[in-house]
Amino acid sequence: MHAEIIAVGTELLLGDVVNSNATWISKELASMGVGVYHHVVVGDNPERIKQVVDQALERSDILIFTGGLGPTDDDLTIATLADLFNEPMLEDPESVEVIRAFFTARDQEMACSNVKQAMRPQSALALKNPIGTAPGVMWDISKKAGKPALLYAFPGVPRELYAMWPEAKDHLKQFLYGSGVSESVINTRFLHFFGIGESKIGELLKDLMTAENPTVAPYVGRAEVRIRVAAKAPTDEKAQALIEPVAEQIIERLKPYWYGKDEDTLEQVVGRLLMMLNKTVSTAESCTGGLVSSRLTDVPGSSAYTSLNAITYSNDQKEKLLGVSSKTLATLGAVSPETAAEMADGIRKVSGSDIGLALTGIAGPTGGTDEKPVGLVYIGLSGLTDAPVVKKVMVNPKNDRVDIKHWFSQYALHYLRQYMSGTLE
Amino acid sequence: MHAEIIAVGTELLLGDVVNSNATWISKELASMGVGVYHHVVVGDNPERIKQVVDQALERSDILIFTGGLGPTDDDLTIATLADLFNEPMLEDPESVEVIRAFFTARDQEMACSNVKQAMRPQSALALKNPIGTAPGVMWDISKKAGKPALLYAFPGVPRELYAMWPEAKDHLKQFLYGSGVSESVINTRFLHFFGIGESKIGELLKDLMTAENPTVAPYVGRAEVRIRVAAKAPTDEKAQALIEPVAEQIIERLKPYWYGKDEDTLEQVVGRLLMMLNKTVSTAESCTGGLVSSRLTDVPGSSAYTSLNAITYSNDQKEKLLGVSSKTLATLGAVSPETAAEMADGIRKVSGSDIGLALTGIAGPTGGTDEKPVGLVYIGLSGLTDAPVVKKVMVNPKNDRVDIKHWFSQYALHYLRQYMSGTLE
Repeated sequence: MHAEIIAVGTELLLGDVVNSNATWISKELASMGVGVYHHVVVGDNPERIKQVVDQALERSDILIFTGGLGPTDDDLTIATLADLFNEPMLEDPESVEVIRAFFTARDQEMACSNVKQAMRPQSALALKNPIGTAPGVMWDISKKAGKPALLYAFPGVPRELYAMWPEAKDHLKQFLYGSGVSESVINTRFLHFFGIGESKIGELLKDLMTAENPTVAPYVGRAEVRIRVAAKAPTDEKAQALIEPVAEQIIERLKPYWYGKDEDTLEQVVGRLLMMLNKTVSTAESCTGGLVSSRLTDVPGSSAYTSLNAITYSNDQKEKLLGVSSKTLATLGAVSPETAAEMADGIRKVSGSDIGLALTGIAGPTGGTDEKPVGLVYIGLSGLTDAPVVKKVMVNPKNDRVDIKHWFSQYALHYLRQYMSGTLE
Repeated sequence: MHAEIIAVGTELLLGDVVNSNATWISKELASMGVGVYHHVVVGDNPERIKQVVDQALERSDILIFTGGLGPTDDDLTIATLADLFNEPMLEDPESVEVIRAFFTARDQEMACSNVKQAMRPQSALALKNPIGTAPGVMWDISKKAGKPALLYAFPGVPRELYAMWPEAKDHLKQFLYGSGVSESVINTRFLHFFGIGESKIGELLKDLMTAENPTVAPYVGRAEVRIRVAAKAPTDEKAQALIEPVAEQIIERLKPYWYGKDEDTLEQVVGRLLMMLNKTVSTAESCTGGLVSSRLTDVPGSSAYTSLNAITYSNDQKEKLLGVSSKTLATLGAVSPETAAEMADGIRKVSGSDIGLALTGIAGPTGGTDEKPVGLVYIGLSGLTDAPVVKKVMVNPKNDRVDIKHWFSQYALHYLRQYMSGTLE
């Protein structure tokens, strides 16, 4: 049974909204062993929605809709589907009550347009929305499709989809496994790498990438490369047993660049390492403006290992708060290895942390010179070595400012990880 | 002439990558007056790619491909298209040289697999890639489609697509306007709002939302609502003349919530206001961990109005660096209006800035109590009023930590904007 994800919304076709829902649902389905062969986006137009559904039913068995369940007049997904399948619509009394309660709890008036959201096709089940006003739909359309087929409809607001997914997932599982339609699962593992490119990985793993089970494929992410190892087997355990040795081989071959697996982020990995070593860190940022600190504190519980971080944008503040010497700033400049070293030492002393991490560079788009171009950053680390260590990095200046900041922060966390692991060269 | 955007890549269907390219291209095409009626994602599978192309050619005239141009064996977009259209492939000598130069400039060896990227269908034009190794393709397929039709293929890496777009856009414009096929343009204006929901906007603008030219539609973004006003007319000027009065009416009706238009971000608007008023700001953050500072400094030139920002995660650092009184912390707690006020005053004094902005709250997922739940934040502002002003905000605790941080930062910038405009209530 293959799934197809159909997003309804002119806003997607106008480029105003990214279709992150399709991404999220795909990941969920992959973990259940359900293959997704197509994503489609179509506008709020009944005729085009119907054509897309007809095509989808020819090639897919599970249709998952997102969007078009809102209160406004251009939200017409469910009415269009009911019309296509010649199914009368009825008002779901339970949904009306839930919607009413939603507004009462917020001391808000219920707009009349919200009642429309409680309509569902007669033979469909309402899918509860615990955090919004639009319920979804779970619908066994096997009779209408002339084959085992299911249809789900979710609102377009991502966090409502996430909250509604568990109920739909149970329903889908019951259909798939309760009826014995699917007999295998797909398990996947993602490995995360930083500091090596996709082509290089492709060459180093060429033999593994031609294998059929598990499959191995690299993907370029945002300032990282991910490798996906996916195995098909009758059970989760057997799939994992296929994945394990291959994942280990990959890590072995690409060790210096590997930092985590699956949902791991670099900041989480760094946080775990800090906890394990019982160390604390403080950051002194210039060009990244607080991004490194923000990423470190994206991790729940990060207050255990970071208590003070500073953004010193001006030379003056670098001197006053961090004690960078005015001579260094005057003779070598704010963007120099010496300043990075003094900033790292300075924030470590001010904060009383074990490790100081400092960044000083040029995020652009202006402010670059021939000698110190946009994309240049010095990253200083201090506290675990006799003297501070400074790494020089040059990222592609054609990136925009926000991306350059992200690359800088990625390098900073990468070197911090290596600094703590004793693998920084 | 309608366009269809076809992304090729199993990684998209596995949910490993978001299809942000389709979003970006859609926006570009909308600004050129080219309608996009469908987005499709299909895997790296020749048969399924061919089926999708057949369907697309029935309903669309401009096919834009992204992905599958890389050096690895599962990159097969162009070969598949050539095969479908019975077109021989040849090696583009210029592209080979560009690829070779790319690697030479980086002191890297050219992998053999990269030569594959220089292959193109005989009657197609190579589309230069100024920053990567994979050239794209611009292809007039009118003869093959039996109607005026164009095909473009771009790599999947977003910044390569962006860099290659101008050349493709010129080619497309020449085809559209050079041949007089299209005689009208669509112009759009986006208006950004914070602090009001989509249904409420729907009711307040009901009359405007039923109009046909310009059309008015609200979209829920990330911690904001955007309203799109789109007009169709023979020229840009005429389209703008249709948009202008409607946009003004919308702003008038929703004034307190409106902060910007088109590509404006809240941090840019705040930055412009700081420049206009000739004021500087410093932030003292707790729960947001530097996110407010990072957003402020996402704006080029922000060093003109912010020089020192601090993240004080612990009570100790709030006392030491910001001078928050130990009594306040002990009796009222770190998450209290009093602490927010003292933090705002403190960072203003330490930094010498005109305005102090402070946040203290609970981003979760743990650390909440009945009295001070996850999602609660106090935002302090000081410097433009006799005494600090503190706003209490409660965001939906069902959001995850990263989203809660984003909402907190959005409220902080929103109140900072109102504080400077004199409209903070």
